[in-house]
Amino acid sequence: MSHIALNSAEPGIRGLLRYRPETARPLSELTEVLLRGPSTLTRGERELIAAYVSALNDCRYCASSHSACAAAQLPGGMTVVEQVRAGPASAPVSAKLKALLAIAEAVARSGRAVTGGDVARARGAGATDVEIHDTVLIAAAFCMFNRYVDGLATTAPDDPAVYAAGAQRLVTQGYLPPPAEPGREG
Amino acid sequence: MSHIALNSAEPGIRGLLRYRPETARPLSELTEVLLRGPSTLTRGERELIAAYVSALNDCRYCASSHSACAAAQLPGGMTVVEQVRAGPASAPVSAKLKALLAIAEAVARSGRAVTGGDVARARGAGATDVEIHDTVLIAAAFCMFNRYVDGLATTAPDDPAVYAAGAQRLVTQGYLPPPAEPGREG
Repeated sequence: MSHIALNSAEPGIRGLLRYRPETARPLSELTEVLLRGPSTLTRGERELIAAYVSALNDCRYCASSHSACAAAQLPGGMTVVEQVRAGPASAPVSAKLKALLAIAEAVARSGRAVTGGDVARARGAGATDVEIHDTVLIAAAFCMFNRYVDGLATTAPDDPAVYAAGAQRLVTQGYLPPPAEPGREG
Repeated sequence: MSHIALNSAEPGIRGLLRYRPETARPLSELTEVLLRGPSTLTRGERELIAAYVSALNDCRYCASSHSACAAAQLPGGMTVVEQVRAGPASAPVSAKLKALLAIAEAVARSGRAVTGGDVARARGAGATDVEIHDTVLIAAAFCMFNRYVDGLATTAPDDPAVYAAGAQRLVTQGYLPPPAEPGREG
């Protein structure tokens, strides 16, 4: 049961977004830009960074949700997602993505844990400055989302099919809320 | 020197917001809503939570900036900010704010560190569900901002006067960027 009385039975961040629309709007826009906006990182790669950080932070709802989104958009599907979660160094992903995942892992510990060596390795593997920027911000943003979701003790479904269905919706429709009903928004 | 080549000499998050306007917009809107939007917590109290979490995360730029913003808007000024940073339990703030700062401290460690007891103590001291929600999200958001600022190794001025001047600007103008020049935005 969540720490506060929400106004819906929706699990994880969905209940929190419905509870506080004032903060839901920028949070949804941030997620949409980071994970689905124009980028030289694929949507699957960005969801994988989100899933990996959420797993490191032991946030079951976010890790399950973004693992499903990554699996739906990566050639290797859930197999590669699970291999990355078990340890990016030996997972079948590009050297560039391994280096970016190492930066994300450092960010999850502390911003100050990211070293010049981490960044040089990513750049040596072909990462651009914008890709390094976006990796740091995706990892940092999920350190926020994970704490938001678990800090209020929201519920997380057990059934993987729930996350797979949610991923299908997110992959096709994105993170922005549907347009407001006529007359509801000024 | 920052880990990536920015397009300005602005320190801390300011340089990052200028570098990536696509993410700057939702980040600025989130900060404005959380720290300055309608709330039963004062702006000074909310800046104090931001400063406290930033200090716990050892993020010098954010801790200095939001300490200055809190000091400018709290009756006790910088003295009370420094007392809270040294330990909220013995600081001259309300029992409710102490309990909310304890929740923020837990969030900084992990979302899963927030206990039902922490929340019950805050509620017992008069905190509402929305205040508990906003405290968790402010603390979580600064776990993001701190990692973003330090994960890219942005610069932080040493002179406290720089942060005091920045706080005067933020207190009067807020966190949203000035309106775009005519013709610059669609």
